[in-house]
Amino acid sequence: MTLPEIRSYLKKHKIDAYFLPRNNMFLEEDILEEENLIMSLSGFSGSAASLIITPEKTYLFTDGRYELQSKMETDAKEVEVICSSADFPLLWLQNHFENGKFSLMYNPWTISAETIVKFTEMFPKAKLLCDEKNIFGSKQSSKKAHVFALSEEYTGISAEEKISEIIPIIKHNGCDAYLLTSANEVSWLMNLRSDALPDSPILRAFALIKKDGSVTLFADNTDNADVLPMKKLEKNLKEIKKGKLGVNKKNMPQMICEIFGEKNLKDIGDIIRAKQITKNEVELQGYIEAHKQDAVAMIKFLYWLDNNYKGKTELDIVSKVDGYRAENDMFICKSFDTIAATGSNGAIVHYHPSENTNKTLERSSVLLLDSGGHYQNGTTDITRTIALGIAKQKVIDANTIVLKSHIALANTVFPKGTTGLALDAICRKELWKENMDFKHGTGHGVGFILNVHEAPRISTQAQSSHFYENMVTSIEPGYYKENDFGIRIENLYYTKECENSGLLKLEVLTLVPLDKRLINKYLLNEEETKWVNEYHQKVLETMSPYLDNRHKEWLEDACAPL
Amino acid sequence: MTLPEIRSYLKKHKIDAYFLPRNNMFLEEDILEEENLIMSLSGFSGSAASLIITPEKTYLFTDGRYELQSKMETDAKEVEVICSSADFPLLWLQNHFENGKFSLMYNPWTISAETIVKFTEMFPKAKLLCDEKNIFGSKQSSKKAHVFALSEEYTGISAEEKISEIIPIIKHNGCDAYLLTSANEVSWLMNLRSDALPDSPILRAFALIKKDGSVTLFADNTDNADVLPMKKLEKNLKEIKKGKLGVNKKNMPQMICEIFGEKNLKDIGDIIRAKQITKNEVELQGYIEAHKQDAVAMIKFLYWLDNNYKGKTELDIVSKVDGYRAENDMFICKSFDTIAATGSNGAIVHYHPSENTNKTLERSSVLLLDSGGHYQNGTTDITRTIALGIAKQKVIDANTIVLKSHIALANTVFPKGTTGLALDAICRKELWKENMDFKHGTGHGVGFILNVHEAPRISTQAQSSHFYENMVTSIEPGYYKENDFGIRIENLYYTKECENSGLLKLEVLTLVPLDKRLINKYLLNEEETKWVNEYHQKVLETMSPYLDNRHKEWLEDACAPL
Repeated sequence: MTLPEIRSYLKKHKIDAYFLPRNNMFLEEDILEEENLIMSLSGFSGSAASLIITPEKTYLFTDGRYELQSKMETDAKEVEVICSSADFPLLWLQNHFENGKFSLMYNPWTISAETIVKFTEMFPKAKLLCDEKNIFGSKQSSKKAHVFALSEEYTGISAEEKISEIIPIIKHNGCDAYLLTSANEVSWLMNLRSDALPDSPILRAFALIKKDGSVTLFADNTDNADVLPMKKLEKNLKEIKKGKLGVNKKNMPQMICEIFGEKNLKDIGDIIRAKQITKNEVELQGYIEAHKQDAVAMIKFLYWLDNNYKGKTELDIVSKVDGYRAENDMFICKSFDTIAATGSNGAIVHYHPSENTNKTLERSSVLLLDSGGHYQNGTTDITRTIALGIAKQKVIDANTIVLKSHIALANTVFPKGTTGLALDAICRKELWKENMDFKHGTGHGVGFILNVHEAPRISTQAQSSHFYENMVTSIEPGYYKENDFGIRIENLYYTKECENSGLLKLEVLTLVPLDKRLINKYLLNEEETKWVNEYHQKVLETMSPYLDNRHKEWLEDACAPL
Repeated sequence: MTLPEIRSYLKKHKIDAYFLPRNNMFLEEDILEEENLIMSLSGFSGSAASLIITPEKTYLFTDGRYELQSKMETDAKEVEVICSSADFPLLWLQNHFENGKFSLMYNPWTISAETIVKFTEMFPKAKLLCDEKNIFGSKQSSKKAHVFALSEEYTGISAEEKISEIIPIIKHNGCDAYLLTSANEVSWLMNLRSDALPDSPILRAFALIKKDGSVTLFADNTDNADVLPMKKLEKNLKEIKKGKLGVNKKNMPQMICEIFGEKNLKDIGDIIRAKQITKNEVELQGYIEAHKQDAVAMIKFLYWLDNNYKGKTELDIVSKVDGYRAENDMFICKSFDTIAATGSNGAIVHYHPSENTNKTLERSSVLLLDSGGHYQNGTTDITRTIALGIAKQKVIDANTIVLKSHIALANTVFPKGTTGLALDAICRKELWKENMDFKHGTGHGVGFILNVHEAPRISTQAQSSHFYENMVTSIEPGYYKENDFGIRIENLYYTKECENSGLLKLEVLTLVPLDKRLINKYLLNEEETKWVNEYHQKVLETMSPYLDNRHKEWLEDACAPL
């Protein structure tokens, strides 16, 4: 169906609105292009989106990163774009249907039980309609996914050990089993991954963990016979129907309530994430090694770029940098779709080049390159903004302010438990001073060969993200001048206890030089200059042994003191 | 009754616990000493406290500011002190009565309806018992309070105008009347004050605002015939019992639910505070003028102290500084009980000297002085840490770090809507760097001849305090070394829109020099040194015309560049 056809359908059946989030049953996960209903319906390709379709109009909800892109990709006659926070669709419904009396249709696989609870609390007079007919004809990819196990050499602990730590929590909560509906956490718990998604090796599966320690996995289209097809879930749940089933309603599809009933369901919340985002020593060592491998690819790319940027396009850049990463034996896949943006494309936050938008790199312009990889031993995510020839002074100054903002946070020590909201302000302060800012988060956790975006978060909304030891986070402030240029500087760090004080500091993982041609050293204070020089010294010392002579020489130059 | 007697009473009547907050029916307000049941029962005199009394033991809940003081003032055999956040008593009950089955007695005048809702949600199996017999024999002060009106010359707008802005909100919410139970907001709305409390000129009253614009005030023991005694409230509420009564359950005593019934009560939340904490131009001008008057008193005091500290005690300091403030014709009363602390007393956050604790000022020590006044045109609150002779290097360095932390926030510009939690981190960052911190808020709003502590807050808990234009706030980082010394540097500021950018900046109100003898200029960076010199230049230029020659000369010296 097309959007106008859906609108007719709603009109005919007297349904006031259809709510369509971007996900499938794996609520926190990315999806394949062929699974992306929002893109096929509205044209919008961004990674944060939901639609509310009414008989009259379609409303697309996304966030500030996609302000420009969403308007470019959609037809303004059909789709009204609303850029706001994630919970805005509910507020929008409140305003749109003032008396609270309306009917809303949705697919119960795609919406969390928690959202449904929130909805019914907010709209006691509204009518919820399950879309049992699947009016959009949405389908899952039919490609068979290969399932593979990670080596304990890199995971540090076995799936059995991880499960044995979870069982007492399930028992303590008086449950007979726990249905784990977060694919990211299932993958972590079982030390399993798959190739179902192009940029994320997670295994898209649910896990039913019984209190005797046995675990059954459910997923469609895998090459592993031990993973049962999703349609068997209902039968397996019925077997424990008299017992208590623990769940986390935050990421459990409402459909589980429909199947299992509310009575014996117990929301015991998130029992795995805190363990998963606290990296063990083997995982941390893996991140460190993976970042060296990644730096080899990035340094080779930067060397190549300096000598070859003329006439190249953004898509050339993507294939070149992806190619250098793929040279490594440990490389599994990209950790997200590479962003290469030059000129005004750089101002479109989280832009991805396509044949339609592809720009040629021009002298005196800058290239914003955000990329990363999953390796056998860890995951990387790095953004560099690179001068093509001699950059304009306003771009150099803007880049320097973004760098000051990056350093402000990277240099901070802070008590355990500090929130991502607090850290966010420390970073943005330097930008605010120059009347600059950016409309995206300041940082995100990075999964261990899992989702590249995970908890904890650093953002203006992150009052519930708390930082403790051994967590991995990005710092990635930026600045975007519409129709002109874009800048972002991103490194990954991990939290480590300071000697003597018990405070946390951020140890850098990323080992790739910053472009000194974009640094106005007269805008840096002594502490900031020291940070840059020490960072470059560390990059040079760590990376030189991995490089041949011409790359080593280039690196020496790139890392020379300011 | 004494604590052991109350425990016997509870035992005899099989009551598991009695919950006793520090307030009377004016839930957010300070109380008179004779009204302070917690002090008379436990000995603890701090301003943040609640008791849970069980048949076995008494538990005193307070916060980190009072960690030392609470243990000094109470008998460890009878009272167990628990320092934590404000909502901790509920969490404590959860841990103490694991199965959730217990009976809790309380006085419904002293607990908010919101807390009771939260309690019944958390403890569905628990039994709440209203203390109708008033087993503590708590009593209100019998002193007749003088009620007086503020001049419109200083309030900027009349009570009639303020009321006329409120009426549409009451009507919009479908209410026939609104019962305003915040004494601070009643005082603001009516432009009325009283002398009931020693350090706060608020009129402790409720206001019943009818949708026709008529307002009736209720309070006991006033000299104003228009203010009806509290016992008439019930009758007045009954008159509108068929209509809807709007309330704010956050600061409304549960007793109102008991009197009026839940059915026609509508919690429309806080409809006044946002207006009250956003100062109008006349009020802001008043704050500016009041701070000049206050600076005259403080400068005279500092001059006197330099020449006369030898042999003086903390109590001498209190009477001296209070005396200088009282010399001003516009002075109404102190804005809180003056804190003068020297030596190890300085490490007791929010210490107040008494005959028992009174220390003599000693050479090479420092004096922490936190004081302020209510004037006809505004309210002040200032803390200075002052060297007595030549200070120790460790104290100078600590004071310099606290100063850096103060400047970090004072110099910040930030978007409208930024939270107090975000600003808090910007301030503390400089302390964390040196493994220092402080266990109190970083800042608080300051009422206009109202409570000296009001919204917005700057603290690690202030994720819901948002900053907008024309709000007044303190910045007051500190450092406290137990058994040794204490430091705090506090100025008041108001938020103002920056030209061109629309961001907010903080304009300083306080005009009293910082003690340069406690500043190690080698620890300051260029920007910080510039801030100190510009601040002192502003103090000198603004204050010189108000001073005689000897004070002017002293000020010139105190304000000379670093």
